[in-house]
Amino acid sequence: MLTVEEYRSKFLSYLENFQSPNNPKNLYEPVSYILSLKGKRIRPILTLLTCDIFNDSHEDALDAALAVEVFHNFSLVHDDIMDEAPLRRGNQTVHKKWDLSTAILSGDVMLILAYQLFENYPANTFVSLANLFSKTAIEVCEGQQMDIDFSKEMNVSADEYLKMIQFKTAVLIGASMKMGAIVAGASEKDQNNIYEFGKNLGLAFQIQDDFLDTYGEEEKFGKKIGGDILENKKTLLFIRAKQLLSELDSENLTNLYSSKFTNDTDKIAEVRSLFEKCNIPKLITSEIENFTNISLKILDELQISYEKKEFLRDFANSLMKRNI
Amino acid sequence: MLTVEEYRSKFLSYLENFQSPNNPKNLYEPVSYILSLKGKRIRPILTLLTCDIFNDSHEDALDAALAVEVFHNFSLVHDDIMDEAPLRRGNQTVHKKWDLSTAILSGDVMLILAYQLFENYPANTFVSLANLFSKTAIEVCEGQQMDIDFSKEMNVSADEYLKMIQFKTAVLIGASMKMGAIVAGASEKDQNNIYEFGKNLGLAFQIQDDFLDTYGEEEKFGKKIGGDILENKKTLLFIRAKQLLSELDSENLTNLYSSKFTNDTDKIAEVRSLFEKCNIPKLITSEIENFTNISLKILDELQISYEKKEFLRDFANSLMKRNI
Repeated sequence: MLTVEEYRSKFLSYLENFQSPNNPKNLYEPVSYILSLKGKRIRPILTLLTCDIFNDSHEDALDAALAVEVFHNFSLVHDDIMDEAPLRRGNQTVHKKWDLSTAILSGDVMLILAYQLFENYPANTFVSLANLFSKTAIEVCEGQQMDIDFSKEMNVSADEYLKMIQFKTAVLIGASMKMGAIVAGASEKDQNNIYEFGKNLGLAFQIQDDFLDTYGEEEKFGKKIGGDILENKKTLLFIRAKQLLSELDSENLTNLYSSKFTNDTDKIAEVRSLFEKCNIPKLITSEIENFTNISLKILDELQISYEKKEFLRDFANSLMKRNI
Repeated sequence: MLTVEEYRSKFLSYLENFQSPNNPKNLYEPVSYILSLKGKRIRPILTLLTCDIFNDSHEDALDAALAVEVFHNFSLVHDDIMDEAPLRRGNQTVHKKWDLSTAILSGDVMLILAYQLFENYPANTFVSLANLFSKTAIEVCEGQQMDIDFSKEMNVSADEYLKMIQFKTAVLIGASMKMGAIVAGASEKDQNNIYEFGKNLGLAFQIQDDFLDTYGEEEKFGKKIGGDILENKKTLLFIRAKQLLSELDSENLTNLYSSKFTNDTDKIAEVRSLFEKCNIPKLITSEIENFTNISLKILDELQISYEKKEFLRDFANSLMKRNI
């Protein structure tokens, strides 16, 4: 096994050598642009390290890793249009830097380029990768649609919310790992277990992301604390609070999420005080732990050495401590 | 072989039974909607009949035919956004009937659903179909980008224009037929020849489409004559005329395509008179014939019975006579 930093740099070299065609310029420049923006590259790193977990052959997984990253960036380009986001990783989004048509079309071409990367594998591997990829890609689209639908609705259940983040985020983490396992020729049982490991870790990570948005330290989290509250984002914190609060308090919370506030600090403080009234910090922390534990428990099932289990356990813990 | 009408109705029954998932409703309703709009279904018909040409087994090609049609509709949904088109086949476009996000996302999901349809084939067939599909889909995106680029440019060469329509339209006709040949297990040589047959026929058809937009009969063509001229669309007619006219006339033509006209009939008449001054109707008619003949000539190379060659010849002629 290499270190996470080594996997990242292996992937980045490979990415740098990945030449999408040059022409038409207006189609492919945005592809190079979005792929070159600094990101943590968690997903392709997971593909590479999983391939080493099962067969010490991460070089073979570079194309699958690249497919995952290209797909992820396709979804960012299209999601940014839908969210009308001006910035991505501190840089202009594609539809801002170019225009709407360019963002739609270069997104489309990235989705196809991702499939093309599987052509470098033998037929049976190709089919396994493409099937998993299609299933996952469809779920990611469904998750994005649920997210859009939920933003217009006040009564989203916790189950619905969990399904949304599972589809929008967690399945791609699971699939990134499973692709590494497929390339490594792991058994079907190991493939499915590593998928569940990644999926549950992805769920824990996403819920933690929501939690840190309200209760994190600004410096470590890297974003302004309270952003979700100001955007009236109905995260799991909000949904659980709505369930638990008295009718009156629940109505207050709804009102806070409906009306325009003049003072941001006041709004964040009021929402937080309602969250704390029903013990949200403790409750959500234990939900995060719960998904992390489900994930770690799956390690027992894998047909791999003790050292490799330790590697995955350390990786999961570092990820949840936001050290990666 | 069946009749074209029989292939169409076989395809339509299959399409009717194709159930995309129901949920999220806002993601999949637009998919059913766009697929249900009346269209000629030329591409899936070509896939089915080509499969019969090589192996009398069109039932096997239904999923490939459906993939082609789903892909074609994906491209319509996204192109309609870029073109800001309010109507498609007389009905509201998806982004008008729903909204931008819905149109982007349901387009995306259709592109993935098309790949998923190949999962019903054995691994080697899957790989052949997916490779051809990816290559074609990328070319279609490139063609759309060229079309957008060219609309902002006055000096597009005939070669560039021909490459644009080849990518935007003709390669999908070629690929629709080649997919039928792949499913039928045709030889690689036959696969490539039928692709070239379809591609050249597609080129002839698209140039004829441009020609009929200016010189067709309104009733038969089904659209208002002169539409391209009013939209300043730089079709092959315009490009060839620019090459052939005197400097002064060429400038006049450019001006006609730049300024806003108050009277549509006058503009159409003036442009037509410039076209006729340099013999455009005859020239373009012979270009159409040229591509049709290249296509028909390829029939000689195919390893199929005389009757099947006649079937393809009749099909090509009916298509060019706009009887299909």
